[in-house]
Amino acid sequence: MTAPSRGFPVSEFEARTKAAQALMAEHELSALLLTTEPEIRYYTGFLTRFWESPTRPWFLVLPANGAPIAVIPSIGAHLMRQSWVTDVRTWAAPDYTDDGISLLTDALAECVPVGGRIGIADHIESHVRLPLADLRRLEMALLPRVLVGDGGITRRLRLIKSEREIEKIRHAAGVANRAFDRVPQTITSGMPLSEVIRRFQMLCLQEGADWVPYLAGAAGASGYADVISPATDEPVSQGDVLMLDTGLVWDGYFCDFDRNFSLGVPTDDVASAHARVIDATRTAAELARPGATISDLFHAMNGVVNPSGDVMEAGRLGHGLGMQLTEGPSIIPQDHTVLAAGMVLTLEPSVTVRDGRLLVHEENIVIRDGGAEFLSDPQSPDIRVI
Amino acid sequence: MTAPSRGFPVSEFEARTKAAQALMAEHELSALLLTTEPEIRYYTGFLTRFWESPTRPWFLVLPANGAPIAVIPSIGAHLMRQSWVTDVRTWAAPDYTDDGISLLTDALAECVPVGGRIGIADHIESHVRLPLADLRRLEMALLPRVLVGDGGITRRLRLIKSEREIEKIRHAAGVANRAFDRVPQTITSGMPLSEVIRRFQMLCLQEGADWVPYLAGAAGASGYADVISPATDEPVSQGDVLMLDTGLVWDGYFCDFDRNFSLGVPTDDVASAHARVIDATRTAAELARPGATISDLFHAMNGVVNPSGDVMEAGRLGHGLGMQLTEGPSIIPQDHTVLAAGMVLTLEPSVTVRDGRLLVHEENIVIRDGGAEFLSDPQSPDIRVI
Repeated sequence: MTAPSRGFPVSEFEARTKAAQALMAEHELSALLLTTEPEIRYYTGFLTRFWESPTRPWFLVLPANGAPIAVIPSIGAHLMRQSWVTDVRTWAAPDYTDDGISLLTDALAECVPVGGRIGIADHIESHVRLPLADLRRLEMALLPRVLVGDGGITRRLRLIKSEREIEKIRHAAGVANRAFDRVPQTITSGMPLSEVIRRFQMLCLQEGADWVPYLAGAAGASGYADVISPATDEPVSQGDVLMLDTGLVWDGYFCDFDRNFSLGVPTDDVASAHARVIDATRTAAELARPGATISDLFHAMNGVVNPSGDVMEAGRLGHGLGMQLTEGPSIIPQDHTVLAAGMVLTLEPSVTVRDGRLLVHEENIVIRDGGAEFLSDPQSPDIRVI
Repeated sequence: MTAPSRGFPVSEFEARTKAAQALMAEHELSALLLTTEPEIRYYTGFLTRFWESPTRPWFLVLPANGAPIAVIPSIGAHLMRQSWVTDVRTWAAPDYTDDGISLLTDALAECVPVGGRIGIADHIESHVRLPLADLRRLEMALLPRVLVGDGGITRRLRLIKSEREIEKIRHAAGVANRAFDRVPQTITSGMPLSEVIRRFQMLCLQEGADWVPYLAGAAGASGYADVISPATDEPVSQGDVLMLDTGLVWDGYFCDFDRNFSLGVPTDDVASAHARVIDATRTAAELARPGATISDLFHAMNGVVNPSGDVMEAGRLGHGLGMQLTEGPSIIPQDHTVLAAGMVLTLEPSVTVRDGRLLVHEENIVIRDGGAEFLSDPQSPDIRVI
């Protein structure tokens, strides 16, 4: 399988920046202040696994016009200077007395008139990646300029993926499809679940993942108790349902879907539970086209898997997908986002097989003008057998 | 190699909690509010890769007495209930109108008298993992109780590792030692750097890593330009120095060290640069014993690799290590932390081979009463040759 080309042309970052600036004008914001990995990468292409280190803050200032200004630790200067950003200001972090705050204050003061408003992410699924004491110092230093909510500008832009972004997600999903196809040849009954998880990560890498930031697995008779517990050394056994759920990355973009396997011939309850979650994803995928809403998808799936309307432990039946394992929107009854071409979603219904035992299924789709296109290989109602 | 047992006995979480509560009394804090993965795991053992999803906030309240209270999304209830925490309060997250804030306010109001102080991390290397608008809502709802800095209590406790924590870090380092030993049999000249990185991750998994959250690699003649760039598809060539730096995890604990390899016989400048960084780590390791300070380690290494006192691009020459890839303290001249038994550190000097070309070396040590014990296999001055 030929990989798409890595990175993006500068025109794509320029277009994202201009789109943000148009929304900033509507919200009367003189600048955006961005502090997290996906926000900074979205406007610059700055891609590194170094964010795993929590030590240093990183800042990007998006002014009302022109290119962003990077205010970053000197360790990142070489990489940032390879992006389209030319104004890169650095300090030797960590600095215990002033960890970039003066430098950032100056950059913001250049872009924002006295009394002007600076937008910062404050909505659901966001956080500010900066020590709280430094955030408070920054707010004081900026006065009479004010830090206010960013109106969800970056979140809104990121909802609609470009063709280049979709290609990367499709490529990541292709890697996972092939890794899942090799599971029956790799996993055997009696293998500890921790070893199953380890081997599946190797399959993902062999098939071309850059890395595997997320992998969950669970196994049990008639399904599993939850989908987030770490793998124990307990062996998987004949009669178990084994679930593997991966968020692997290619060129900074995630896929996120799972597959269920029956070790041996499935029991009737497992077979019918699996058929039901497949039915739910198919029903939602048929509905998923521009003009339908996220809540429509919720009700379509919930009607199949949870007709009595019980409380969902997972809290939702899918979500957005792209630069992060999970992004907005959330597939819940309260989300009335209107679907539009270019949205990438996971459909993730779950069903109770018996008391305390779940079966969860997940597919990845992109919304096209004509309807949903699957990025993961849509599964058949018959659970795969090992 | 036999792995240590996973997890911790309840007594260890009780001891951590009691130690925090003693410091809370000194700081006149009626509760701590914890929002990030390592903080919550430190007091509960709650270990999951699900934190990769940024969607949901998670809260732990540490009262002045007794066990912590978990205020978490229902998707995490099953796992949290397997910890020593019995008071687990849940909501179906994401909730667009009240994403746990009322539930958290109630829990804090039970523990904190009117006018009381609630500590939250606000220092260097920390952030608050919660939407800023929700943090502001919480502060209003808690009035006249106030959110104040936590005095670095959790940070201070985490500085000194228990024997069980050290065992886990040592085990992770052992996995990386074995993976590095297999590099010469796995990597060949002409292989794209992206493929080198992928294969090294597989080696780490084969040798027993649970997962590989961090891996950086770089290659070039006379060293490399930086240590954080993502791998390109450019092949590594005869004459290059190849650097691989991994932060792999076993049972939630990291190792973090790199190795340099010369593809073919090293040039004199590379050979002497490598000998110099080894000399720097050895010099620091000899000094590293209770009573010495972090700044002593800095000066010991800097005197070897950077005698002219130039600006360091990396900003520091090592750091703490444990539940996170990088933790406090930072090995910089301004850090006067006194070393104590149980501190785990990386020693990470770098040297300029020629203009714009670095060589970085890193080892992991634990401070013992008698001096430093290496957790990584200390390297010889001779660079390894592929």
